[in-house]
Amino acid sequence: MSMEIFEQYESNVRAYCRNFYDVFDRAKGALIYSESGKKFVDFFAGAGALNYGHNNEYIKQKILAYLESDSITHGLDMYTKAKREFIEKFLQIILEPRKLNYKIQFCGPTGTNAVEASLKLARKITKRTGIFAFMGGFHGMSLGSLAVTSNIQKRSSSGIALSDVTFFPYSESPIDSFDTIEYMEAVLNDGHSGIEKPAAIIFETIQAEGGVNIASPEWMLRLRELSDRHGILLICDDIQVGCGRTGPFFSFERAGMIPDIVLLSKSISGYGLPMSILLMKPELDVWKPGEHNGTFRGNQLAFIGATAALEYWEMNNLEQSVKYKEAFVREYLTKQILSLHKGLTIRGAGLIWGIDFSNVEDERITQKVVEECYQNGLIIESAGRKDSVIKLMPPLTIELELLQQGCSIIRQAIQENINKVLEVESYG
Amino acid sequence: MSMEIFEQYESNVRAYCRNFYDVFDRAKGALIYSESGKKFVDFFAGAGALNYGHNNEYIKQKILAYLESDSITHGLDMYTKAKREFIEKFLQIILEPRKLNYKIQFCGPTGTNAVEASLKLARKITKRTGIFAFMGGFHGMSLGSLAVTSNIQKRSSSGIALSDVTFFPYSESPIDSFDTIEYMEAVLNDGHSGIEKPAAIIFETIQAEGGVNIASPEWMLRLRELSDRHGILLICDDIQVGCGRTGPFFSFERAGMIPDIVLLSKSISGYGLPMSILLMKPELDVWKPGEHNGTFRGNQLAFIGATAALEYWEMNNLEQSVKYKEAFVREYLTKQILSLHKGLTIRGAGLIWGIDFSNVEDERITQKVVEECYQNGLIIESAGRKDSVIKLMPPLTIELELLQQGCSIIRQAIQENINKVLEVESYG
Amino acid sequence: MSMEIFEQYESNVRAYCRNFYDVFDRAKGALIYSESGKKFVDFFAGAGALNYGHNNEYIKQKILAYLESDSITHGLDMYTKAKREFIEKFLQIILEPRKLNYKIQFCGPTGTNAVEASLKLARKITKRTGIFAFMGGFHGMSLGSLAVTSNIQKRSSSGIALSDVTFFPYSESPIDSFDTIEYMEAVLNDGHSGIEKPAAIIFETIQAEGGVNIASPEWMLRLRELSDRHGILLICDDIQVGCGRTGPFFSFERAGMIPDIVLLSKSISGYGLPMSILLMKPELDVWKPGEHNGTFRGNQLAFIGATAALEYWEMNNLEQSVKYKEAFVREYLTKQILSLHKGLTIRGAGLIWGIDFSNVEDERITQKVVEECYQNGLIIESAGRKDSVIKLMPPLTIELELLQQGCSIIRQAIQENINKVLEVESYG
Amino acid sequence: MSMEIFEQYESNVRAYCRNFYDVFDRAKGALIYSESGKKFVDFFAGAGALNYGHNNEYIKQKILAYLESDSITHGLDMYTKAKREFIEKFLQIILEPRKLNYKIQFCGPTGTNAVEASLKLARKITKRTGIFAFMGGFHGMSLGSLAVTSNIQKRSSSGIALSDVTFFPYSESPIDSFDTIEYMEAVLNDGHSGIEKPAAIIFETIQAEGGVNIASPEWMLRLRELSDRHGILLICDDIQVGCGRTGPFFSFERAGMIPDIVLLSKSISGYGLPMSILLMKPELDVWKPGEHNGTFRGNQLAFIGATAALEYWEMNNLEQSVKYKEAFVREYLTKQILSLHKGLTIRGAGLIWGIDFSNVEDERITQKVVEECYQNGLIIESAGRKDSVIKLMPPLTIELELLQQGCSIIRQAIQENINKVLEVESYG
Repeated sequence: MSMEIFEQYESNVRAYCRNFYDVFDRAKGALIYSESGKKFVDFFAGAGALNYGHNNEYIKQKILAYLESDSITHGLDMYTKAKREFIEKFLQIILEPRKLNYKIQFCGPTGTNAVEASLKLARKITKRTGIFAFMGGFHGMSLGSLAVTSNIQKRSSSGIALSDVTFFPYSESPIDSFDTIEYMEAVLNDGHSGIEKPAAIIFETIQAEGGVNIASPEWMLRLRELSDRHGILLICDDIQVGCGRTGPFFSFERAGMIPDIVLLSKSISGYGLPMSILLMKPELDVWKPGEHNGTFRGNQLAFIGATAALEYWEMNNLEQSVKYKEAFVREYLTKQILSLHKGLTIRGAGLIWGIDFSNVEDERITQKVVEECYQNGLIIESAGRKDSVIKLMPPLTIELELLQQGCSIIRQAIQENINKVLEVESYG
Repeated sequence: MSMEIFEQYESNVRAYCRNFYDVFDRAKGALIYSESGKKFVDFFAGAGALNYGHNNEYIKQKILAYLESDSITHGLDMYTKAKREFIEKFLQIILEPRKLNYKIQFCGPTGTNAVEASLKLARKITKRTGIFAFMGGFHGMSLGSLAVTSNIQKRSSSGIALSDVTFFPYSESPIDSFDTIEYMEAVLNDGHSGIEKPAAIIFETIQAEGGVNIASPEWMLRLRELSDRHGILLICDDIQVGCGRTGPFFSFERAGMIPDIVLLSKSISGYGLPMSILLMKPELDVWKPGEHNGTFRGNQLAFIGATAALEYWEMNNLEQSVKYKEAFVREYLTKQILSLHKGLTIRGAGLIWGIDFSNVEDERITQKVVEECYQNGLIIESAGRKDSVIKLMPPLTIELELLQQGCSIIRQAIQENINKVLEVESYG
Repeated sequence: MSMEIFEQYESNVRAYCRNFYDVFDRAKGALIYSESGKKFVDFFAGAGALNYGHNNEYIKQKILAYLESDSITHGLDMYTKAKREFIEKFLQIILEPRKLNYKIQFCGPTGTNAVEASLKLARKITKRTGIFAFMGGFHGMSLGSLAVTSNIQKRSSSGIALSDVTFFPYSESPIDSFDTIEYMEAVLNDGHSGIEKPAAIIFETIQAEGGVNIASPEWMLRLRELSDRHGILLICDDIQVGCGRTGPFFSFERAGMIPDIVLLSKSISGYGLPMSILLMKPELDVWKPGEHNGTFRGNQLAFIGATAALEYWEMNNLEQSVKYKEAFVREYLTKQILSLHKGLTIRGAGLIWGIDFSNVEDERITQKVVEECYQNGLIIESAGRKDSVIKLMPPLTIELELLQQGCSIIRQAIQENINKVLEVESYG
Repeated sequence: MSMEIFEQYESNVRAYCRNFYDVFDRAKGALIYSESGKKFVDFFAGAGALNYGHNNEYIKQKILAYLESDSITHGLDMYTKAKREFIEKFLQIILEPRKLNYKIQFCGPTGTNAVEASLKLARKITKRTGIFAFMGGFHGMSLGSLAVTSNIQKRSSSGIALSDVTFFPYSESPIDSFDTIEYMEAVLNDGHSGIEKPAAIIFETIQAEGGVNIASPEWMLRLRELSDRHGILLICDDIQVGCGRTGPFFSFERAGMIPDIVLLSKSISGYGLPMSILLMKPELDVWKPGEHNGTFRGNQLAFIGATAALEYWEMNNLEQSVKYKEAFVREYLTKQILSLHKGLTIRGAGLIWGIDFSNVEDERITQKVVEECYQNGLIIESAGRKDSVIKLMPPLTIELELLQQGCSIIRQAIQENINKVLEVESYG
């Protein structure tokens, strides 16, 4: 059978293929097709890397034209036309209209590489070693990023001590009535706290992997104020929820605050091609030439995709479109999902939403929902503590009909499986 | 002017653009063209990522066809047709003929990510924390990889302690008559050495960034024997000199030994697209699903490129071709370069060669040579301690004429600048 | 002048001599005499090492007799009569009446050595690396102990990262309404807290150096319960407030809970001689012979002193005596001190008390009080955050008259200096 | 039976009592007596803490007089008459005649505390983190000292990573023809060695615990020169072989070089009482008041002992005496011991000597010799790798007759047990 070769030769570390047990072939927009022709609505969007849909036609034509013309594909950090066009477009469409004055570092093309670069930079600038990070946060799998990632199982895979990081509860956390900003303030003011002033605080405006936990604008403003007052750099990891996912291009626009360093990856190339950038206030650019490098930091196809994606995002007024779809999802979840079980809660912004089952007394419920959705033609994953949150993250460009269809599949899957739970309970 | 935007908005960390001061546009084979139409022979090959030349036509057609058909581009670790074809081809062309029994992990698409994965895996398997690494070695810029990288300036950019690693002199090192294997053996047998038995030894068969230092086959065999006897995993970082660079597909074939874990990246995709894989003996595959992950570990365009590149490599009998060109370079350097100055030495294998200026008393000599080459239409870089080695690393597919042309440019650049040195000396 | 030799040849690290600027000569009970014949009441008690007074006559005679008989003075961990007598007496007077089933480790003769041994042991037993410690806590200056000590200035003197420790607010902390036990519970139950389950929690029942912060019995019981439930070892550092300081021999008796490991030093030898012991539940004694050692772990004079001190403590019913004096101090501070300024607070137990000036707006007030006391014949020190607490810690054996005299000197010193502050303010 | 209480209540960590299985009572000079009246010659000298013999009468009288006069016993770092007298005598007898310009830090009273202080100080001065240490070296059991101790079993007892230290082979090491100074030089000059320039190098002139390995004067001079040239602090841990053990007061006098920092403990108090000091060149005294502290750093009885010991050492011309006895031991070992087995080697200086059995093919031979010696009335221990060295370390004051007697017991014990081995072999 056609999957044997994977099972025999691909490492056991493979994961998504276990839930989405097919061999995939083509994809377009919000649809993916398996080899056998089965069709799936995609509420997963490449873990956030496909905000503009699979094989977005506008972007695709630009990439094809570039390839066909034998333009340079791999450029390290040499100057290229493709990079210049990206910088120009990024300034024009994104930075200047928002009056954001950032310089751009082109990192190795993965989110974790941008995280590593930001931590190095913060430590280099401040000559301090500590980083404050948040419980529930996810920043990557290489050693520096893993040290600021809170998932204990992932951390233990490093096999060594992950040091120089202090974790704090997030804006929204399982601990009731815990005011993290107040606690940080107390720690920073206390010469006997055991915790030195850090180089930086790294945060996500929405913890996507952490279970769609949403920081309130007020909390983010207080975090900014605290960082400023203590001379701590504030790093926004906007890798999963930037690039328009929450509506505006950057997710921190929601709070009206400006981080010192911003990390983008995943959807920045617009086409699922590896790329990451680090934005920093100009005075923070203390790098020496080549001090941080990487073979693929000049992935030119990704630059072409990124430039096209910015144009596409603007031309199609995706910010508005996301708001419209957000309203739909919010209403659907509120009216059609919450009513299914009193233990359910929902939260979200733009086109990232979570349905939280942590108060439903069935440890395997989300796994069952994910499986049932898949059977019915929807690709969706669970996230967060004990995987208790179903995370909705369709392409921003999804047609309303497919959005509705996906939501219906979720509703049905929950209904089926929650009912099963209740039935079992009633017999119990 | 057209470069202003880079200088104003791109981070100071940019490096290669300072030596190769042009905006580049098109490239084909072993030639790169600047925006203004200037043409350069490429002896740099994307730092080893372009073994099959820029925009290799065979690979390009496969990638174009894939893109045009709206096949899936971003697949995380889902099963896809593109990945299956790669695995099949890799088995058929590479692993099976060499009787190598490896499983494949698709890592985040950068070399440093594969290094990080290998260190995690070795520590997980052995439940030990230490790693032995080599002076002169380079493995990447994320924290785990940086810890096994020997360049002290790069290391210090981390801003924190890089621990759990012990460095040893390499096979070829500045320390005369030092037998590293004997020393390791003594350390491992001594309960008072202060150095615990490590999880793994990570090595390159040729230290490319380290200045084209070449491990002897005998040394590698002894390293393998020592690792086996002590139950230490042996990791071969074949990122820069694998994929045919030295002639055979894997660079360790030269020694007739088999590492426990092999890391490939750079040229594996054949087209400069980000991709990396980790090969491991099947019994080492103790990963749990998702224990190491990454958004771009399923870069499908790279898989298409990689499959095509393997075909291309085999069809064109590149192994033979590299041997032929190696003979040319060896002879040229021996006859035409060594005669220029008694302080020069050369070393190399396949199509990676170094001209070592460390005995030439002019600290800036290699920089002058690099600049002069660039003025005369050759892209080449220096490497190693104090950048004292000129590293020749053209695409494996380079036409003999261009190879000769590049070598002539180097010869002339050395002659001009060494003469200058001698003249100054004679006046001094 | 007679102090020049210190100033020229003794390291700048010397500290107490700066506040207590005399050369000291003789001492007896709660009195110390300088070379010039000046007499001081001692409310400092050797930082807690002289609970039974200077040159306690009962203990002294035992030590003299031992010395005169040429009995062994230095015994490493050989069996000696002196050690056997100590163990017997310790069982008889301390452990058995309290139904405490501990084994005894004789550590290197300093508190910090016992702390180091306890952390090693906890990590060895649990095979975990982390330790939970408390803000405000003090455990010593060697690297392992310093890592669990919260004072940031002391920590920075190590010059390297102090890792594998997580700090939490103490029972009584500057952060209002923070429930540490609840927070620990949340952290331990959260797979995304970033904080692994620790090997041990180390705590003081009263943070003496931290400013006489007192854990409530209820808090200690909850800490015990939490540790038990999660399989975490609970280490009580009773170095400063054990040996009868709070009334009962162990300070944790106040809470009716039993730590897994208890550390004693300072007053255990009864005569200011270096000694420390580690008590552990028998099942925790997983040490291999010689796995932790130290040249002076068999300081026989200290064992003789310690045996005599236990006898003295029991014969003189010091527990009752402390209660009586505690009542006096409590009343004096409440009636005579609190009335001096509305910003003052007091706290204490047994014969350790703190007068907290942190709400008095004069950063140097405690330093002035300490100086004024010294001028008037009282040795006393400040402690805690910003040294804002005056710490009363006389020998347990102090005569009531001297206790009153010392308290009067404090009262007068506060009155004089608080008045000065107020006057300046009224002019300001 | 009288040892039960130890076996039931004292931790399993106890070690020497297992070899010297008696309860000890009195001791005088080089003799120790067990409770039952058995008499032992002492070739162990409290692991180096009893250079002037047990209960040295001259020192004893000074201590008794001090105790009887109710002089202060515990003084932290206050100025006391006892400390002043020690400083004066130390200047007069030791530092000034040797033209040594050191300041004195009184550390917590254990060797390991002095080691910890020296490492902190070196890191503070240089703002570097690394330390170079030697294979075979022993410096203590607290975490900082353990990190520079090479014994892997001891190290693993810490349960966490011991970082920021690089180990090098010692002057005399199991690795033939290894020139450590040359290797260090190469490492320090190599920007790709992976090893940063350290804050300090810590060394022993003779590795006592390491098996009586002796650094050559030439090697020490080269170490000094290398340290000077690279701006690295040189710390001499003279804890076990200082205080006259090798003849001159400091063991480094043998090489005619001067360390930047010198650590003394063990025999400095002259009477087995806990005390340690750190000597540093005046310009290195950058400590802030109280930056390193410890409750027992003012052990006044030890100061009295130390002052008397210096007087005793000088009055009795111990340096000459040691030379005389050294000659005896050297001759005895050469003539009477080496002849017993061709696998034996000896090495030593002053009154520390090792008989090395590592070439005798019987893993348990030294244990048998130690046991047999004990049965015949001699206390002696084994040391070094695999405990293969019998270490002779009698008090410096030992009577020649007892020295001879001890040597004879050793000879007999070796003869008996080596014969047994040979017999078994000849039958085998």
